[in-house]
Amino acid sequence: MLLQSTNAMTNNHTQKDKNFVIFMPSGRRGLVETGQSLLEAARQVGVEIESICNGRLTCGKCKVHIEEGAFPKHGIVSGASHLSPPSGKEKELLAEIGDGSGRLSCSAFVQGDVLAFVPEESRAQKQIIRKSASERVIEIAPAIRQIYVEVETAVLGQHQGDWGRLQSALTEQAGLTGLTIDLQALRRLQTALRSGKTAAGKWAVTVTVWQERELIDVQPGYVEGAYGLAVDIGSTTIAGYLCDLRTGAILATEAMMNPQVTYGEDLMSRISYAMMHKNGLDKMHTAVIKAINQLAARAAKTAGLRPRQIYEAVFVGNTTMTHILLGINPVELGGAPFALANRDSMDVRARDLGLRFHPGANVHVLPSEAGHVGADNVGVLLAEEPYNQDDIVLTVDVGTNAEILLGNRDWMFSASSPTGPAFEGAQIAFGMRAAPGAIERVRIDPLTKKARFRVIGEARWSNEWGVETEIETTNDHPTTRLPDYPTTRLPDYKTTRPQDYPTTRPAHLAVGICGSGIIEVVAEMFLAGILQADGRFNPNLNHDRIVRNGSKAAYVLATGDQTGNGQPILVTQDDVRSIQLAKAALYAGAKLLMLRANVKKVNKIVLAGAFGSYIDPKHAMILGLIPDCDLEQVYAVGNAAGDGARIALLNRHKRKEAQNVAHWVQYVETAVDPDFQNEFVGAIHLPHASDAFPHLDGLLPEPIPVVRNGRSRRRRRG
Amino acid sequence: MLLQSTNAMTNNHTQKDKNFVIFMPSGRRGLVETGQSLLEAARQVGVEIESICNGRLTCGKCKVHIEEGAFPKHGIVSGASHLSPPSGKEKELLAEIGDGSGRLSCSAFVQGDVLAFVPEESRAQKQIIRKSASERVIEIAPAIRQIYVEVETAVLGQHQGDWGRLQSALTEQAGLTGLTIDLQALRRLQTALRSGKTAAGKWAVTVTVWQERELIDVQPGYVEGAYGLAVDIGSTTIAGYLCDLRTGAILATEAMMNPQVTYGEDLMSRISYAMMHKNGLDKMHTAVIKAINQLAARAAKTAGLRPRQIYEAVFVGNTTMTHILLGINPVELGGAPFALANRDSMDVRARDLGLRFHPGANVHVLPSEAGHVGADNVGVLLAEEPYNQDDIVLTVDVGTNAEILLGNRDWMFSASSPTGPAFEGAQIAFGMRAAPGAIERVRIDPLTKKARFRVIGEARWSNEWGVETEIETTNDHPTTRLPDYPTTRLPDYKTTRPQDYPTTRPAHLAVGICGSGIIEVVAEMFLAGILQADGRFNPNLNHDRIVRNGSKAAYVLATGDQTGNGQPILVTQDDVRSIQLAKAALYAGAKLLMLRANVKKVNKIVLAGAFGSYIDPKHAMILGLIPDCDLEQVYAVGNAAGDGARIALLNRHKRKEAQNVAHWVQYVETAVDPDFQNEFVGAIHLPHASDAFPHLDGLLPEPIPVVRNGRSRRRRRG
Repeated sequence: MLLQSTNAMTNNHTQKDKNFVIFMPSGRRGLVETGQSLLEAARQVGVEIESICNGRLTCGKCKVHIEEGAFPKHGIVSGASHLSPPSGKEKELLAEIGDGSGRLSCSAFVQGDVLAFVPEESRAQKQIIRKSASERVIEIAPAIRQIYVEVETAVLGQHQGDWGRLQSALTEQAGLTGLTIDLQALRRLQTALRSGKTAAGKWAVTVTVWQERELIDVQPGYVEGAYGLAVDIGSTTIAGYLCDLRTGAILATEAMMNPQVTYGEDLMSRISYAMMHKNGLDKMHTAVIKAINQLAARAAKTAGLRPRQIYEAVFVGNTTMTHILLGINPVELGGAPFALANRDSMDVRARDLGLRFHPGANVHVLPSEAGHVGADNVGVLLAEEPYNQDDIVLTVDVGTNAEILLGNRDWMFSASSPTGPAFEGAQIAFGMRAAPGAIERVRIDPLTKKARFRVIGEARWSNEWGVETEIETTNDHPTTRLPDYPTTRLPDYKTTRPQDYPTTRPAHLAVGICGSGIIEVVAEMFLAGILQADGRFNPNLNHDRIVRNGSKAAYVLATGDQTGNGQPILVTQDDVRSIQLAKAALYAGAKLLMLRANVKKVNKIVLAGAFGSYIDPKHAMILGLIPDCDLEQVYAVGNAAGDGARIALLNRHKRKEAQNVAHWVQYVETAVDPDFQNEFVGAIHLPHASDAFPHLDGLLPEPIPVVRNGRSRRRRRG
Repeated sequence: MLLQSTNAMTNNHTQKDKNFVIFMPSGRRGLVETGQSLLEAARQVGVEIESICNGRLTCGKCKVHIEEGAFPKHGIVSGASHLSPPSGKEKELLAEIGDGSGRLSCSAFVQGDVLAFVPEESRAQKQIIRKSASERVIEIAPAIRQIYVEVETAVLGQHQGDWGRLQSALTEQAGLTGLTIDLQALRRLQTALRSGKTAAGKWAVTVTVWQERELIDVQPGYVEGAYGLAVDIGSTTIAGYLCDLRTGAILATEAMMNPQVTYGEDLMSRISYAMMHKNGLDKMHTAVIKAINQLAARAAKTAGLRPRQIYEAVFVGNTTMTHILLGINPVELGGAPFALANRDSMDVRARDLGLRFHPGANVHVLPSEAGHVGADNVGVLLAEEPYNQDDIVLTVDVGTNAEILLGNRDWMFSASSPTGPAFEGAQIAFGMRAAPGAIERVRIDPLTKKARFRVIGEARWSNEWGVETEIETTNDHPTTRLPDYPTTRLPDYKTTRPQDYPTTRPAHLAVGICGSGIIEVVAEMFLAGILQADGRFNPNLNHDRIVRNGSKAAYVLATGDQTGNGQPILVTQDDVRSIQLAKAALYAGAKLLMLRANVKKVNKIVLAGAFGSYIDPKHAMILGLIPDCDLEQVYAVGNAAGDGARIALLNRHKRKEAQNVAHWVQYVETAVDPDFQNEFVGAIHLPHASDAFPHLDGLLPEPIPVVRNGRSRRRRRG
């Protein structure tokens, strides 16, 4: 059918040693000399077909399906064979890879017009799709390349040395010149060469080359499989993604507590620890390296690999975390002018850090933007690419410091807002990290003022307890293994150590409140009229769910019979104040950037970080955490920093892009900006000004008049 | 005077803002604008003056002496000041460096014609003279460069990071771009910057840059002093030279036994050890690394330094030694085709080898030529540069294997001859390594057939014992410390361990025979008519110094009262045979290369290696060790391999030269060459053919007719 439709074209090539070849699905086509292999033909017309063994019939990667013109298929227009018949070896290999109907393009030689289909797995340019605020395609182009090569054996009288022999073969067969060799690989070279003899008596090895310039591994014969690790070092949680560097697939996802929490919960206390203790840096550095080694070992085990099969790693983290990772004292980040030791990306030999990956593995640390905006934020940039969008995007990565990005393809501002740890459950009376038993969802009935809630590890809301007999546990917060990308939700919250909550309680009983829970409960308290807009408990409201101790009030979120230890869980006035301060800092940071950019509204809001995945955009906006935006345009994208690390792991060009973007983004220092202070003060109220949130129209209740000193504020103003 | 002689020139420059400046002793001259510093003027006319601080008046390196035109010197032709007056700070610094009469060229600004003399120590291109067969000049151009630089301090709002700030300063002040930084240096960077503040409030540091591309150290303020270590790893002895990389001076020379002797005396037995024992390579590698660390520590101590001040090291050694040094199994060198893992030079991080130098130090291993001609022979090439000579030079480095080089600037052959260990005292009945008590010089009276000899550690010949009352000990063979280059003589001989000879014996008594002694005694026995030309003891000679045991004869070199243990020292028929085999191998190797090169005679012979330093050229030629040559043109150059390492340490361009020469030299495989076998068989006799040695005319005695089976050979032939 196709060949008929191209008859006109076929007639054009009068030379009978030229044949018309089309590759699907790209549709690329061209005239090809008789006798060329389909692989060569594909290269000629710009179709990249995977091939590792370079026609030696060992890899089977270059498989294609012949739609028209196959040998010995009948019904071909010309009646002749359009391809050379498959050799016995090709047939064997095709049978081995379980595809008897295909052809290996390296061994199918053109004898007439051919239409070939290149299946996804044979395409050299592989891609993966990242689901994010904007769905995007990531091309697989890692820093690591594995090449099968056949080397002339050593003979008496030729003195170039085995490394010289291998270099000659690599130049000839893969076009690589000027390579260096890592000492560790050189040590294995001679044994590897002599263990991998071909039938023709040559030495056959598979080499691993880093950045087209250094040979870091050599293995006998034909070997497949290079793996990489992307790691996001959070202050509290370390998350790692073990990836197949050929397909981009995530083979294992692991998360663990950052053992540095022993030396301080937040960044400032770790910087102090490094400053005050002689071996403080050493201890924290050693702890994180040990943790990463454990994480890598676990991930490798899950994937059925060994850690030494990790050939490359990419790290992100805030600036303090990357400094400590590299063994650099973070002390300068503890005070103005917050000088980074190095803003740019770095390549470090994994073994120099004590990381037990492949002995020749390199570690790439993404660049930072400024003293308080680190590689994790650059990871978010890579993952979300706001710099490639027309829309004005506000990206918020909430942690102890919230990193805020605002901009589009033309301009980009970044800032770091000191939110403090309240969003992570710290400085909250009954706060805890996201773990089984933590209240994460809250609804308060405006009439009864009673709350129903849901805890991590339990599918039912508290008002459904006892209704169903079978207790199902949710899988929202697994503590060790994470579901595969892109639904990854990290147990990233802080404050409470795992040992702080009892593990023997019934699964549905509450233990404390985690970050997303505290945001919902404060917003719901406000919606239910329990809180005034200034954050104070409504003094006119008396209810058995509200307890007062002098001027201090508290709300009973869970009663004693709903908790693991029989004591009620309260939300105190101080808790509300902490949340007010935190949300004001975050909001003020966003507003400061909008002020600098001179924009009144944003088109899209991206909530990054594990925290961002759990909070309800509506509650966040009711609280005044984020500026007004169409709620449909608020996206939670999970651990975007980790995704950015993974992107840089899978595509080396993205590292260059990261470096450029990190320099291009304009960092705005919040700490010294009077506009920030101004916005901060103006953002303390809940919601500080309803006309600033047109998208909340109809969602907010009639405001309770703010009562101060017994007088209604509204009345006073009116 | 000068200014008068250049008046004609002076008149030529009509523009009064141009001045005529001459620099001596080079005589380079040019017109220089008024207001330029003498340092700038020098650079303009191509005179390199040392300057580290770049005009900041801290280093005092750019000192010159003003011959004419100095301020406020009188008698100047024009009567005016030709240079700006020295500032207070310049005067202070000049006083500090003890040269009140000089000027610092960075601070003396041209106002008229000037004649300046640049003293040796201020010349940027420093040189050292190597005394060798041909005296040569080595320019000091190490791979390491230290640069003093002043860096802008960090200020809030500038985010480039401290490494970025330092890079900017290095680009601006030293023209360096694209630098990377070693992680170890990055870890020290921030502290160093903040510890070295200038009066103007800038950060001042001295950085150490490797090969103009990687920053490996950063120290606060202005610091001077980069040191390097050149190491020759012999099978038996490791020799190290600690050098000042700025002046080229040797600060300490150390030698020690190669601890690998525990695993085998010669190369083949070490290769076997690596082959037969699971951890054999590891053990030998660890042993040599440990030894080098000890050697470096001792050398540093001698020089008043610490090992971590060693910023660079160059290693030479035979191929087995360099393989083991790098942790590469030498097993392939044990059999044909003798494949090297790597023939080319290598740069390896010292810390990756476990060498405790500066944490950022690099180790350069010179290239090899072929499986049996290693970096040590390339070192000899660098030291002697036969490839730059018109004369045809034969270079012989005698060890267990003799490496032989033949050629000149147009062609060069190399070979390795299996001499065996006889020249080092092994396989000799009373052989021992060169150590106190070893007989190193022998003369036999042709009439009495009695020998007089001299032992290491004793100045007198044995016939002088008792004549003098005061016993002087020679300093020829110190056991731990070596005299400075170029008179270095290494205790490089093998076989006998130090513990094998008694240390309590009187210093003059003999203990055994070392390599140079065995050569002399065999040659003298031949000259005295004790040996026939075929190497057999003269059967017609009966003498109380000749003892016979059946068909086996031996010569009494030292009587019981002349030895440490009261037993006589004998030279046996087997000893003579061993020497014959060894010398025939060496001679055949040289002849093979002459055959390949189609030359009948050589112009010059260079005896390299410690062994070469001790043997008497005349005796060597009488023995037929080396081909005929004018005895005046036979040079002993000591440890030329070590000197080559030192040259590559001091001059990075020589490393490139080494790499080129190593590829250029044509290696001739002796083992498989029928011509070698032929020459070998023909070279067994002493001297195998007197007409082959015209330069020995008159030195050789009337040959004793060779008697075999009771018949005179001469008669038989005649």
